[in-house]
Amino acid sequence: MSGMSRIYLDHAASAPLRPEAVDALERTASLLNPAGQYASGREASRIVEDAREQIGELLGADRAEVLFTGSGTEADNIAVQGLAFGALRTCGARRIHVSAVEHPAVGESVDWLCGGLPVPGGPLFERVEIPVDVPGRPGAVGLLDPAQDALVTAMWVNNETGNVTDLASVVGPAVNVGIPTHVDAVQAVGHLPVDFHGLGVATLTASAHKFGGPKSVGLLLARRDAVIDTPVRGGGQERKLRSGTVNPQGAAATAAALAAAVAEMDAEHARLAGYQERLLDVVRSIPDAVVYTDPDGGALPSHVHMSFPGAEGDSLIMLLDVAGVDASTGSACSAGVNRASHVLTAMSVDVHTARGALRLTMGPATTDADIDRICALLPGVVEQARAAGTAY
Amino acid sequence: MSGMSRIYLDHAASAPLRPEAVDALERTASLLNPAGQYASGREASRIVEDAREQIGELLGADRAEVLFTGSGTEADNIAVQGLAFGALRTCGARRIHVSAVEHPAVGESVDWLCGGLPVPGGPLFERVEIPVDVPGRPGAVGLLDPAQDALVTAMWVNNETGNVTDLASVVGPAVNVGIPTHVDAVQAVGHLPVDFHGLGVATLTASAHKFGGPKSVGLLLARRDAVIDTPVRGGGQERKLRSGTVNPQGAAATAAALAAAVAEMDAEHARLAGYQERLLDVVRSIPDAVVYTDPDGGALPSHVHMSFPGAEGDSLIMLLDVAGVDASTGSACSAGVNRASHVLTAMSVDVHTARGALRLTMGPATTDADIDRICALLPGVVEQARAAGTAY
Repeated sequence: MSGMSRIYLDHAASAPLRPEAVDALERTASLLNPAGQYASGREASRIVEDAREQIGELLGADRAEVLFTGSGTEADNIAVQGLAFGALRTCGARRIHVSAVEHPAVGESVDWLCGGLPVPGGPLFERVEIPVDVPGRPGAVGLLDPAQDALVTAMWVNNETGNVTDLASVVGPAVNVGIPTHVDAVQAVGHLPVDFHGLGVATLTASAHKFGGPKSVGLLLARRDAVIDTPVRGGGQERKLRSGTVNPQGAAATAAALAAAVAEMDAEHARLAGYQERLLDVVRSIPDAVVYTDPDGGALPSHVHMSFPGAEGDSLIMLLDVAGVDASTGSACSAGVNRASHVLTAMSVDVHTARGALRLTMGPATTDADIDRICALLPGVVEQARAAGTAY
Repeated sequence: MSGMSRIYLDHAASAPLRPEAVDALERTASLLNPAGQYASGREASRIVEDAREQIGELLGADRAEVLFTGSGTEADNIAVQGLAFGALRTCGARRIHVSAVEHPAVGESVDWLCGGLPVPGGPLFERVEIPVDVPGRPGAVGLLDPAQDALVTAMWVNNETGNVTDLASVVGPAVNVGIPTHVDAVQAVGHLPVDFHGLGVATLTASAHKFGGPKSVGLLLARRDAVIDTPVRGGGQERKLRSGTVNPQGAAATAAALAAAVAEMDAEHARLAGYQERLLDVVRSIPDAVVYTDPDGGALPSHVHMSFPGAEGDSLIMLLDVAGVDASTGSACSAGVNRASHVLTAMSVDVHTARGALRLTMGPATTDADIDRICALLPGVVEQARAAGTAY
């Protein structure tokens, strides 16, 4: 984002603040503690409750089901750990159904429950694998048993590929028999229509900065009848599920960004689908390119995830950086780690191919000119990266 | 803070953003993901690392020991749970030493570990009470045994009373024998000189909005050799202790606010001590007033915590609100709950007296005129509240 001429194609990592969110931050800048029992506290509380109501309307949830957290990761941790602990406490259920393509906020939470958490006598929970199909989407869950199954959790949109999970088939059966279900919708909210009540799941999470809201705001939608023994303990804010002072600026800016994202969703979908098609045409013209994003299978139009075997992902993004393009390999949440993505590994992509991964993700800031330029640049960048790869 | 003529005396709940923090937020507004491996990502990363370095210098810690979280509560949860789990895993230690006056972010975390977390076979940890003295400060810890003691945790400054713990006597012995130690310094950082290395504790936590930084930013200082099995799981940011996208704006604004707070600490200390003395003179002139804040015992000059038996705390803050003063009872983190404070209960204050609690907390925004007005108002407000109390 520094310099006029750069092209930002890492929207799935973090999207620029929308103007509506900037306005909301400025409008609410003087608000302090919404728990204060005085005029400015009530004003802050009103702003938070208005934001809750607006977000609920946009996502098909009641106001009381919309909870603010300090990150999408915190929201996922509360949902996954909280639902599992709740099921363990109330009915002794110990199995967690999860796929290998989940974001680490979910996957590592499950690993913590299934072995990391140091409990004498062995792990509290047992991990049951949800199979993944060729485009890397969680598939059908095996036999379900409410007495044994503590949680079924699935991501809606994969952060690397942009591919969209068929939630009805993954979490639907669990919903039907009353097993706790969680949907990680961090890449979906603001990009796909969301109807929380329609899904029937216990919890659903999002992250504001993925749809043009502020950083440090996560969303946890939680049904009122969900049994959530939250691991985040403290003053009891947010229905006792997420303690910590509630951030009125963050709430207002998140609601404003989400409203803007939802309002322009259809138009943006069409606009970015055109860009995606152009990009994919260029990618497919590059020898041996492997495309992971599956528009025919309903992938988001914002994502183009691919591999160029023989190139290193790090070389690709370094060369693009030099050319003025911000891109990602798609896999490293904390930078600087070059290893094969767990998503691609779960999709049975060989390591050689997986190391040549590149993710370009578009958003409101993306223009025709950006696409012209990346389409012109990409074949040469791949060629250079492959030449560099040979040199190792 | 709405309306020119109001007086804000709830700084301990949340302090207004300092101008230096506002500048930092504006200066860094366009920064996105510090994990991005491109120009703007590196710029965001540089901003975060500069903030880390500056905060480390201000608090006597190395840069790598300064970690950003999404709230003070999250920081306390990671420290308390993480150290306890780490000690359980590495040496089977199961005792947690904690006092009854801790903030819920610590107290409820300990309760979770000592019974809330549903582990078949009984609680993972055992709570051992640290006694509290008359001004409500954690006192000497009992016999210590590194094989059994997983954690000694103590707050530095009590959020209700402003009284300051003698950390050397509470956590010092544990530090000396290598037992994991945590200090909740949420009310201390920015208000007292902090030397993390000098204290020798494993972890220390703070919350940016308590010293004029932004909301949704907590600080976790963590020694590099501390064994912390964090309950927050995800992408592995912040030394794998606090996953979630790092917020460069929040980091920069927190560093700026802390630098300003530390620079003016001595002058503010003297200024507020004068205000505190004036306020306490007025309070002591009110019949049957009980003062909890203990300046002779080293209390922060910002706090005046007291009770007016026969009055209800809620009536006091409502009447003050009507008169244009923002105040708190000191106890309710999530508003609207009128019950006796756990701090006052631990100080053996009877329920009748505890219900008449009022906390006034001053800060940079507090002026001579504010103190003139609250001193003039308070006796009448107490009289009114007591009259209302009689009517029940």
